[in-house]
Amino acid sequence: MSKIIFITGGARSGKSRLAEEIALKHGAPLGYIATGQSGDGEMEERIARHRSRRGPDWQTLEEPLQLAEVVRGHDGYFQAMLVDCVTLWLTNLLLAYDDAPRALAHVKELTGMFPHLTTPLIFVSNEVGMGIVPENRLARTFRDLAGEANELLAATADEVYVTISGLPLKLKG
Amino acid sequence: MSKIIFITGGARSGKSRLAEEIALKHGAPLGYIATGQSGDGEMEERIARHRSRRGPDWQTLEEPLQLAEVVRGHDGYFQAMLVDCVTLWLTNLLLAYDDAPRALAHVKELTGMFPHLTTPLIFVSNEVGMGIVPENRLARTFRDLAGEANELLAATADEVYVTISGLPLKLKG
Amino acid sequence: MSKIIFITGGARSGKSRLAEEIALKHGAPLGYIATGQSGDGEMEERIARHRSRRGPDWQTLEEPLQLAEVVRGHDGYFQAMLVDCVTLWLTNLLLAYDDAPRALAHVKELTGMFPHLTTPLIFVSNEVGMGIVPENRLARTFRDLAGEANELLAATADEVYVTISGLPLKLKG
Repeated sequence: MSKIIFITGGARSGKSRLAEEIALKHGAPLGYIATGQSGDGEMEERIARHRSRRGPDWQTLEEPLQLAEVVRGHDGYFQAMLVDCVTLWLTNLLLAYDDAPRALAHVKELTGMFPHLTTPLIFVSNEVGMGIVPENRLARTFRDLAGEANELLAATADEVYVTISGLPLKLKG
Repeated sequence: MSKIIFITGGARSGKSRLAEEIALKHGAPLGYIATGQSGDGEMEERIARHRSRRGPDWQTLEEPLQLAEVVRGHDGYFQAMLVDCVTLWLTNLLLAYDDAPRALAHVKELTGMFPHLTTPLIFVSNEVGMGIVPENRLARTFRDLAGEANELLAATADEVYVTISGLPLKLKG
Repeated sequence: MSKIIFITGGARSGKSRLAEEIALKHGAPLGYIATGQSGDGEMEERIARHRSRRGPDWQTLEEPLQLAEVVRGHDGYFQAMLVDCVTLWLTNLLLAYDDAPRALAHVKELTGMFPHLTTPLIFVSNEVGMGIVPENRLARTFRDLAGEANELLAATADEVYVTISGLPLKLKG
């Protein structure tokens, strides 16, 4: 049974850096599963910035939707896999299906696989529910979905951290 | 003197679940004071979802504004009362009076009653001040009011928790 | 080498109060560096509210942009200096230059000075990255800048706190 680590935090709070440090302790080869789609400029810049920070120990896989399949397909191959990030994955699922319960079913499929995996998994997510309730209905749906997904992943994880101003705070494990 | 427990957290972060677990330890009958008004569809769905999760030990009271009166009126009757949530109560007060200091006076009236009560009280609130400053002036007023009310309630509470990704972190008590 | 204390938190979460309590332990005279500009009504009210809370031990300096110069210029004079707040300073820098890397260079200039200072410094900042991604591009830029600046300051600080509902949680030190 693989070890699951879940890391949440606000924007630019050091989540990815912490996740990479944890992954590196497992040795090469490491899998980096990018859920962001390199379609727009901001995202390309972000992906390039993160990639340049990681060294040659990493192999990058891009998957916007079928995260469970990618994780299952590479189980046992990498020393650890880092999923960056859950929030973009949920965004992609919600945009693809316009159906929050269906998006959440993908999360449940993923967490249901955990007992059958061997490679340690590190998830990076975002805290998006601590601001004012958004006026936009889709944004509210997304905010609720992200909260439920984070709760589900944290409940099944062995270790959970929240990063604040770059500093990790352990919530579980 | 009643025990006061204050729980804050982001959207769908497990606040209500934690509050219900804490309340259940006190035994039946339990009072659930819902401050949300079942006028709109999203809220009805939310209220129904929460109600279906609670068992027969609970009795629901709906009160959008006069929370202090309802609390005082039922003191000594329930084994514990759960107020869900402070943030909706503040929203109702601000919409009713359009006057943040008057809304805050309601909070002070409530906290001023605490030393005279016997039934344990559990408050659920929301963290709404960790996003970008809203452009809308009413949203800024609400955000400040919510912060001040949370600080007041937490200062008078015996135990304070913040929930993050479904996990409680004890801040006091 | 001066002691650096960094305090972050949401709106009205008790950040400034905590910072003032910490500063007062150092004895008079105390420097209060206000980065907010008293141009608009809300800000004037906020500044007046904070000022009335502080006693005669405090001397107020207003500086919207050249924070490093003000800090360097008063080093050794005050028993402690409180900067309130980093987030408004970053807002001013971003509005003045429309250039996030240049704004971040100001933060790096400031943190680079820390080893050469003697007066303890207490920074108040805001957590703005835990809400929904803003639709407005400038707001996203600001949110990322604020996250990076907070991480930089927290990394160089001796003590770091986050305040939630008025309660401090120590993250470092």
